Amino acid sequence: MPGNSFGDVFTFTTWGESHGPAIGCVVDGVPPRVPLYESDIQQYLDRRRPGQSRYTTQRRESDRVQIVSGVFEGLTTGTPIALVIENEDQRSKDYSEISGKFRPGHADYTYWAKYSIRDYRGGGRSSARETAMRVAAGAVARKVLAHILGEAPRIRGALVQLGPHGIDRDAWDWSEVDVNPFFCPDAEAAGRWADFLDDVRKRGSSAGAVVEVQAEGIPAGLGEPVYDRLDADLAKALMSINAVKGVEIGNGFAAAATSGEDNADQMRMEGDTPHFLSNNNGGVLGGITTGQPVVARFAVKPTSSILIPRRTVTTEGEEAEVVTKGRHDPCVGIRAVPVGEAMLAIVLADHLLRHRAQTGAFGG
Amino acid sequence: MPGNSFGDVFTFTTWGESHGPAIGCVVDGVPPRVPLYESDIQQYLDRRRPGQSRYTTQRRESDRVQIVSGVFEGLTTGTPIALVIENEDQRSKDYSEISGKFRPGHADYTYWAKYSIRDYRGGGRSSARETAMRVAAGAVARKVLAHILGEAPRIRGALVQLGPHGIDRDAWDWSEVDVNPFFCPDAEAAGRWADFLDDVRKRGSSAGAVVEVQAEGIPAGLGEPVYDRLDADLAKALMSINAVKGVEIGNGFAAAATSGEDNADQMRMEGDTPHFLSNNNGGVLGGITTGQPVVARFAVKPTSSILIPRRTVTTEGEEAEVVTKGRHDPCVGIRAVPVGEAMLAIVLADHLLRHRAQTGAFGG
Amino acid sequence: MPGNSFGDVFTFTTWGESHGPAIGCVVDGVPPRVPLYESDIQQYLDRRRPGQSRYTTQRRESDRVQIVSGVFEGLTTGTPIALVIENEDQRSKDYSEISGKFRPGHADYTYWAKYSIRDYRGGGRSSARETAMRVAAGAVARKVLAHILGEAPRIRGALVQLGPHGIDRDAWDWSEVDVNPFFCPDAEAAGRWADFLDDVRKRGSSAGAVVEVQAEGIPAGLGEPVYDRLDADLAKALMSINAVKGVEIGNGFAAAATSGEDNADQMRMEGDTPHFLSNNNGGVLGGITTGQPVVARFAVKPTSSILIPRRTVTTEGEEAEVVTKGRHDPCVGIRAVPVGEAMLAIVLADHLLRHRAQTGAFGG
Amino acid sequence: MPGNSFGDVFTFTTWGESHGPAIGCVVDGVPPRVPLYESDIQQYLDRRRPGQSRYTTQRRESDRVQIVSGVFEGLTTGTPIALVIENEDQRSKDYSEISGKFRPGHADYTYWAKYSIRDYRGGGRSSARETAMRVAAGAVARKVLAHILGEAPRIRGALVQLGPHGIDRDAWDWSEVDVNPFFCPDAEAAGRWADFLDDVRKRGSSAGAVVEVQAEGIPAGLGEPVYDRLDADLAKALMSINAVKGVEIGNGFAAAATSGEDNADQMRMEGDTPHFLSNNNGGVLGGITTGQPVVARFAVKPTSSILIPRRTVTTEGEEAEVVTKGRHDPCVGIRAVPVGEAMLAIVLADHLLRHRAQTGAFGG
Repeated sequence: MPGNSFGDVFTFTTWGESHGPAIGCVVDGVPPRVPLYESDIQQYLDRRRPGQSRYTTQRRESDRVQIVSGVFEGLTTGTPIALVIENEDQRSKDYSEISGKFRPGHADYTYWAKYSIRDYRGGGRSSARETAMRVAAGAVARKVLAHILGEAPRIRGALVQLGPHGIDRDAWDWSEVDVNPFFCPDAEAAGRWADFLDDVRKRGSSAGAVVEVQAEGIPAGLGEPVYDRLDADLAKALMSINAVKGVEIGNGFAAAATSGEDNADQMRMEGDTPHFLSNNNGGVLGGITTGQPVVARFAVKPTSSILIPRRTVTTEGEEAEVVTKGRHDPCVGIRAVPVGEAMLAIVLADHLLRHRAQTGAFGG
Repeated sequence: MPGNSFGDVFTFTTWGESHGPAIGCVVDGVPPRVPLYESDIQQYLDRRRPGQSRYTTQRRESDRVQIVSGVFEGLTTGTPIALVIENEDQRSKDYSEISGKFRPGHADYTYWAKYSIRDYRGGGRSSARETAMRVAAGAVARKVLAHILGEAPRIRGALVQLGPHGIDRDAWDWSEVDVNPFFCPDAEAAGRWADFLDDVRKRGSSAGAVVEVQAEGIPAGLGEPVYDRLDADLAKALMSINAVKGVEIGNGFAAAATSGEDNADQMRMEGDTPHFLSNNNGGVLGGITTGQPVVARFAVKPTSSILIPRRTVTTEGEEAEVVTKGRHDPCVGIRAVPVGEAMLAIVLADHLLRHRAQTGAFGG
Repeated sequence: MPGNSFGDVFTFTTWGESHGPAIGCVVDGVPPRVPLYESDIQQYLDRRRPGQSRYTTQRRESDRVQIVSGVFEGLTTGTPIALVIENEDQRSKDYSEISGKFRPGHADYTYWAKYSIRDYRGGGRSSARETAMRVAAGAVARKVLAHILGEAPRIRGALVQLGPHGIDRDAWDWSEVDVNPFFCPDAEAAGRWADFLDDVRKRGSSAGAVVEVQAEGIPAGLGEPVYDRLDADLAKALMSINAVKGVEIGNGFAAAATSGEDNADQMRMEGDTPHFLSNNNGGVLGGITTGQPVVARFAVKPTSSILIPRRTVTTEGEEAEVVTKGRHDPCVGIRAVPVGEAMLAIVLADHLLRHRAQTGAFGG
Repeated sequence: MPGNSFGDVFTFTTWGESHGPAIGCVVDGVPPRVPLYESDIQQYLDRRRPGQSRYTTQRRESDRVQIVSGVFEGLTTGTPIALVIENEDQRSKDYSEISGKFRPGHADYTYWAKYSIRDYRGGGRSSARETAMRVAAGAVARKVLAHILGEAPRIRGALVQLGPHGIDRDAWDWSEVDVNPFFCPDAEAAGRWADFLDDVRKRGSSAGAVVEVQAEGIPAGLGEPVYDRLDADLAKALMSINAVKGVEIGNGFAAAATSGEDNADQMRMEGDTPHFLSNNNGGVLGGITTGQPVVARFAVKPTSSILIPRRTVTTEGEEAEVVTKGRHDPCVGIRAVPVGEAMLAIVLADHLLRHRAQTGAFGG
């Protein structure tokens, strides 16, 4: 299968370019009779929507999603759900100056090397605009999880590092995430980040970030060893987000420095139920969920569109300098938070359906 | 598709348990007329083979691979290549004592939660023994790459961290990798690691590690955006290796702390050819190879089989303590080096064939 | 993968219901730089369009296709091609009377049994309206074949049986196919069919048909044994068309009655090239094309929407009678001709790309 | 995915050549805790085994299947089930004379055209020997169906035409199928067939056949519209069997000659349950099972290996004559009966698991 689809049972395929008339996706494999309204999807798109603070691009998009198939009288029918968002703000003239130059850090050169054709309007298909459809598909995945599990699992994300600046994990407060422009769970850190990012923005530079996503309320048993482990699929899902360069589960890279006795999550009984005394493994063992929260982090590189001139070459083989004017996020990691949550929801929904197929669990 | 297959055009499916009569795999999608002998595969299996130093398990396996289909008179025929390795050392009595106990850090509990049945003999299917077939499939992938590209790309790996101890990257010497028992590229570090790991082993503890893999000689253009990006597939491939908890490409997590101007890989012309002035992105931009070396690292958690007692519960719901006797690697990260190289070769071969399908490149 | 996609490298996914706002598809895996305009697609949609004679439904649809992604300045970019057709004539009131009754021969009962929800508006997703998108995807497949092969293969279809009435194959004239309302290659038969079908229509009855499709100019070597044989994929493609109940390749069912010596296609040299003295096998041997014309036929059952009352039951479990008023084709087999051609083109394009992946043929 | 796998959730991949050391398959996606012994598989292999009458090849193979993974203490574990059969009778010297000649009707020429390499020993991978593994996988599918449905559906097949000679359907007696060498349900026809086929065999000729397969006890609701319809997947499954040239469901090609009112299967209530008054549609409507028996037929061409000389060419481009000595079935259609049953069981098991994934039906 070509590369624009994701998932095995719960699947979606996205289409559309940054500066085409619209973007969209087809979500297939959704169980029938799941309640689904456009507002269920819109609320998540609104979290990702640009232009909500001075730290995100000023491109103006209302990002209104339309459901054009697969839902009848408020319920899914089991047939493909087509979702469409019109592109409103397609100022492609911004890009004419750089149409022949490969912007460093972007996919310009590699798309050219692969396809020998270039849609220079804002990155075309390689633009992060595509991630809006991931958020939309993720909203459908959340409904599927809630429908089958009876209760919606809590799938949330936060920015835990902005540029070189981390947070105090002891100060973690989920209610802070929605009240600062960074999805930062540490109010004090958010204040410092504002100063840092203002400075970055003014210099025409950009910053990277680390995002953490978590899912609570996920039953044990999801994941298909040995290649379609839940954490392997999640690693692929998160690494496929624009600008992501690293993914870790649970303690991740830090686990390499610990000892076997410290890293193992010991078990005791809690009434009739086994429970774990720690969650170093991030809710996944052997590729299968343990019933603990699934925890993952991913690193987002600094935005490649900057106002500081960089050396490059052109499609004609000439050396040049390039600056990327226009409206860009000084830190794309911020708006990657709802995208990461969505990918986590999608992987979980897909594996819930796969688990149901093979074992009959969570069935009628 | 169930979870025991990997790849889209170059694919393989593995089967077999730690203590069954044999393990094997079927490699499908291999081009016809690629020269292939058992010795081409055996040399890589020998790198991964246990019992070669005091730092790996003393389980005795010669790991002789047999090609049982798909090759005729020394050439692949384009039909499925079946590979088999007999299990020789199946001392399953070692495991009887722990047959009802969930070993912390292992997949025992999650397989039980998923399948409601337990093959307690050495982890059954979840054992790292399965990775031998990855190495075998990886050897076939290397032959495919060499056959199509004309010249074999250089795909290599090394251990860059053992427990909390790193290396001096300025001292990196590939020739060291094959002369110490750690695949360590820094001779001095290897000496310190020996002391450290002896101590770990004597205490019945275990250590984690970080592995780096690199591929040189890979053309630009491989990778299928937006979900089957080369780096996304590589993240999945590496995260699917037993005990891996983190994956990064190029600068990885460190990129989050840098600025856009520092992280972007600038370009100049070198004669008629564009070239990059740095490789912060690890040879992948927008999910497509740049033509620079592909560079990835992955974190391996400490071996979960240790002699230090840990608290656990049993399949009957009783609390217990467990120690894992038997023959175990004090650091599974060491033998993960050839496995990581193999997964990198597999992802590259698969994407080379996919690229050829869509664009016709490397054909004719 | 869920069931609304077809193909392995050249793939498409369709969405939309008979009475929703639009129908559409996403075609993925198309090579870059293939010239593609809406008019390339529209010409095939026009062949299938309803309301062009008294023998097809009077539903009024202009079926104007729009390309909304994947094409830039007249060339494909290698990214997903989204195609959309607005539904114009959605007279859903026609269907209110039968909303609770399962129409015999239709998918009403089985969709209900599967999904426990019913979109009663004209069959919803099970309507043959979906086949418009197959024709659109087929037009893209034709462009891909022409682009890679250098010359467009000739992919054509004809009705060879209407109800119980066949044709005289010796009178076969391709130029007749486009001048009668039946896609019939035998002018005299077409005349008799008109009388027959007028009578069928007036009685409120319906008729079945057999369609033959052929592809000339296909190279030898396409097809992936042993399960993804070209003829196996073609059988699936044709059987998936609404109302199709049988598929055959070459001599098909008639081959069962012949002898081995008569059925074998003997070979001689024609200059330097092997050629066959007959084409009993319909251009496929062992699942791989021979270089001769690929020939297949499929049987279409009579339209299930008829004005003659039939016994049925309701969603409430009550017995009832049903007639299907509205605008229906007296023989859906007629408009199945361009759909069959499209599916043949799609299977060939997919296998051409798969062949290129594994062998490198038609590349570079 | 390459072509040697079949199925989406219940899947299998076969490997091996006619004259290699062994053939085998990997069955993946099987639910855990299904009772499975080698004898469950062997009984079906024995039905297909060669050498049981003078009407099948005299090649001597005991076809003993071994389960080498995926089963622990008599129960499936949810991990891949590897099955292996050693090839015992590999008289490859029989084939040396024809090693350069393309045998008409065989896949020799097309494999050569595709792969540019030839395993001339008995057809190599294109040999019908591969179908033994289909029968083995089909036996596993039967166990899965029985395990999930609680009762084993009755999946049976019979030869309904041998050469030009049909049966009297009113004389159909399933108990006859196992007592004559043709799997013929009509005792009188079997007698006539014996005379006919003796004559064919003595002349060194061969005959075609039509096989009918049926499944009773299949619930309504299986099948994934619109491309993975159950009948579309079944058409692919049956067309992929060696020498098959046509497939039909229910009334099949005969449906084309009927009227809408006669062909529609009317419905009444039987107590609380809807039932159908006929089964013209062969148990499938809109690609989804109705709950009636699933009925399909497929046409097998005459064996291509015959003793009557045929004109051909060689790999060197020279004209030649060829006769195929050795031990061949005068009618491969006979031994195709258990293979057809197996493919039907596999398609049903796969769709049962897919249905369970999306709807939760037949779950825990």
